Amino acid sequence: MSDTGKPVGPIPTGYETRDGELAVDGQTTSQLVERAGRTPLFVYSSAMMSRRVADLRAAMPERLKINYAIKANSFAPVLKHMAGLVDGLDIASGGELDMVRAAGIDCARVSFAGPGKRDSELGNAIRHGATLNLESEGEAERALAIAEQLGTTPRLAIRVNPDFELKGSGMKMGGGAKPFGVDAERVPALARRIVDAGAEWRGLHIFTGSQALDADAVIDAQANVLDLAQRIVEKAGVSLPKLNMGGGLGIPYFPGDTPIDAQRIGAALDERFAARSDTMADTDFFIELGRYLVGEAGVYLTRIVDRKISHGETYLITDGGLHHQLAASGNFGTVVRRNYPVAIATRFDEEKAEIANVVGCLCTPLDRLADKAHLPPAEVGDIVAVFCAGAYGASASPSAFLGQGPAAEIMV
Amino acid sequence: MSDTGKPVGPIPTGYETRDGELAVDGQTTSQLVERAGRTPLFVYSSAMMSRRVADLRAAMPERLKINYAIKANSFAPVLKHMAGLVDGLDIASGGELDMVRAAGIDCARVSFAGPGKRDSELGNAIRHGATLNLESEGEAERALAIAEQLGTTPRLAIRVNPDFELKGSGMKMGGGAKPFGVDAERVPALARRIVDAGAEWRGLHIFTGSQALDADAVIDAQANVLDLAQRIVEKAGVSLPKLNMGGGLGIPYFPGDTPIDAQRIGAALDERFAARSDTMADTDFFIELGRYLVGEAGVYLTRIVDRKISHGETYLITDGGLHHQLAASGNFGTVVRRNYPVAIATRFDEEKAEIANVVGCLCTPLDRLADKAHLPPAEVGDIVAVFCAGAYGASASPSAFLGQGPAAEIMV
Repeated sequence: MSDTGKPVGPIPTGYETRDGELAVDGQTTSQLVERAGRTPLFVYSSAMMSRRVADLRAAMPERLKINYAIKANSFAPVLKHMAGLVDGLDIASGGELDMVRAAGIDCARVSFAGPGKRDSELGNAIRHGATLNLESEGEAERALAIAEQLGTTPRLAIRVNPDFELKGSGMKMGGGAKPFGVDAERVPALARRIVDAGAEWRGLHIFTGSQALDADAVIDAQANVLDLAQRIVEKAGVSLPKLNMGGGLGIPYFPGDTPIDAQRIGAALDERFAARSDTMADTDFFIELGRYLVGEAGVYLTRIVDRKISHGETYLITDGGLHHQLAASGNFGTVVRRNYPVAIATRFDEEKAEIANVVGCLCTPLDRLADKAHLPPAEVGDIVAVFCAGAYGASASPSAFLGQGPAAEIMV
Repeated sequence: MSDTGKPVGPIPTGYETRDGELAVDGQTTSQLVERAGRTPLFVYSSAMMSRRVADLRAAMPERLKINYAIKANSFAPVLKHMAGLVDGLDIASGGELDMVRAAGIDCARVSFAGPGKRDSELGNAIRHGATLNLESEGEAERALAIAEQLGTTPRLAIRVNPDFELKGSGMKMGGGAKPFGVDAERVPALARRIVDAGAEWRGLHIFTGSQALDADAVIDAQANVLDLAQRIVEKAGVSLPKLNMGGGLGIPYFPGDTPIDAQRIGAALDERFAARSDTMADTDFFIELGRYLVGEAGVYLTRIVDRKISHGETYLITDGGLHHQLAASGNFGTVVRRNYPVAIATRFDEEKAEIANVVGCLCTPLDRLADKAHLPPAEVGDIVAVFCAGAYGASASPSAFLGQGPAAEIMV
């Protein structure tokens, strides 16, 4: 075995070997593929999602409520399962509003953030009683006007563009000029406007960033969020019925990544809650998580259709690719491509005796699933697993590219 | 006007102003949106596609045939229009085979390249008489076996992994280890195997790269392709009925990009054809182009739903975004984000008196359509045009992301 391979990311805990194959909740890869009827295939584990939410609840103060951001994975069975585990749902479009309604979820549990809400989306959210996290003064006026036309009292919160960011986050959502939310110093005036207009005032949404693995960074950001929220409501002279503190907790994708310490975050939050001011005595505190709750509970399975050698390198060519797993190809919000966790699912316990490139079936050099990975020697017909596929996989990839169409999805 | 703006790419020729608005083939933006019934909207100009093909034919030797790579844009009306203009169609999946068949295109004009062809795709292509550009020895054996089962003589060509690349191309497809094609030195043996097996031998496909703007780089690559093809067929002792020389001609997307000089390429090719050896006396020469034929003929129109200021910066928030135009957001195969050509379509002749950021409606900082662009001051309701949207737009973007769904598409 040459030593010129590149590392792959860490396989999440919870996956096991059965009959030599990768198994999810006791079902082997072969069984899962047979059940779905085809590859490529996303498999989501309901047990792993349940465990993640239970572990998080155990780590966090009892007072903290948990929202699921359905943008991470809105596959209908996953959405229904998650709705039964969490306290509320966050949506980001009228399409997602339709999904939560189709799943029979009470819209009183739903809040809607997103910078470009159309009038029709505002109207539907108001009509069904979802809370709007307002992204600008203009959106606030549109929402108030639409509610008046509808003769409905709208539930309105303000999304704040904080003047700080979540350090070390994969995706910064605060600090400086941003398309999201209202700059912090303008929020008190808008809060007064909303309360004075007779809307049902639902509080603040302060999102600082996502995909952080450093607990201290999240602890700092949450402390800053609590301070900022208090300053805003005191200045505005309004109550704070609800504070969505954003998310931030990430999952390990790449070599060297380690899980974030949720216990530490929970302990720090516990102290903060104990010391909170009277202003927040009756506040409902929420964190909003997507990827952290479902990302590791999903795996993408794709079959090897060709094995070839080019200039001494081995290529395993699969029937899947970036049209289903764009982020794993390194083409979505990343500058330097690194390997996601991958394995040969049908040879899960075999020795990693060769170095191979795993690519998709698309006719583009962008379509890479693993570069120079140490893997058991695999043949045509074997199945590759790409882990961390539970969030921003199927729905965040260009499934129509090159006429391929979507992958199958199942929840077990 | 501050001087801290960033330049945008060059607007392709052929677009004009009418009643103060951007017009496509004489129809104003307002008329186009009314006709489609909604935004976001892709508009494709059949006249611009026709003109591009006619100009290219005028620049190239008469002997050179032109293939359209439908992966660039397979919207059914575009596909039918292009099929009437070009000599052949290149497809990259079984899904694209279904599209050309649905468009009533004779599969004898179709060739199918792509590294991960499933058995079912090979079978369908053989059954309908499409030429397979074989990507490996393994795929060749599978194709021969399937053809034998079907009792059909397959049309087989070999895709060559050349030992050189197209210099300065946006996307390199040759040179060194690659998942595409068969390494050049192994091609003669495979060609003999195919001929000896009694298949209909269709020649070679040598693709060196795409999206080059330097004519000399294409001229060099084409010369190398012709030399390599000759060496291969002479060594194999087989004829060369067809040579697909690949594509390579790019379009200007970014500030400073200039159109490639097709005349120069045509003149150089003319000389090469005149001096060609007897081996290639009866060869059909093809170039295979996607983006170059349709990319500039498409524009993406998206409506401004909010206008807001954050920390002194202006944001125009649209009802579109990266879920329709992933490449324009800078998140698809690019390391450094630069601005595509953009304009305010409903104020196409107004002075560019402000600097604004144009973003999409998605709740992610990745969703940017233009950074700090000089634009006429625009209001809610105005429509933004993103040009160069005719290729790898609608089908190469994650339309289901955040529950948004696809854009409308029309051809005028």
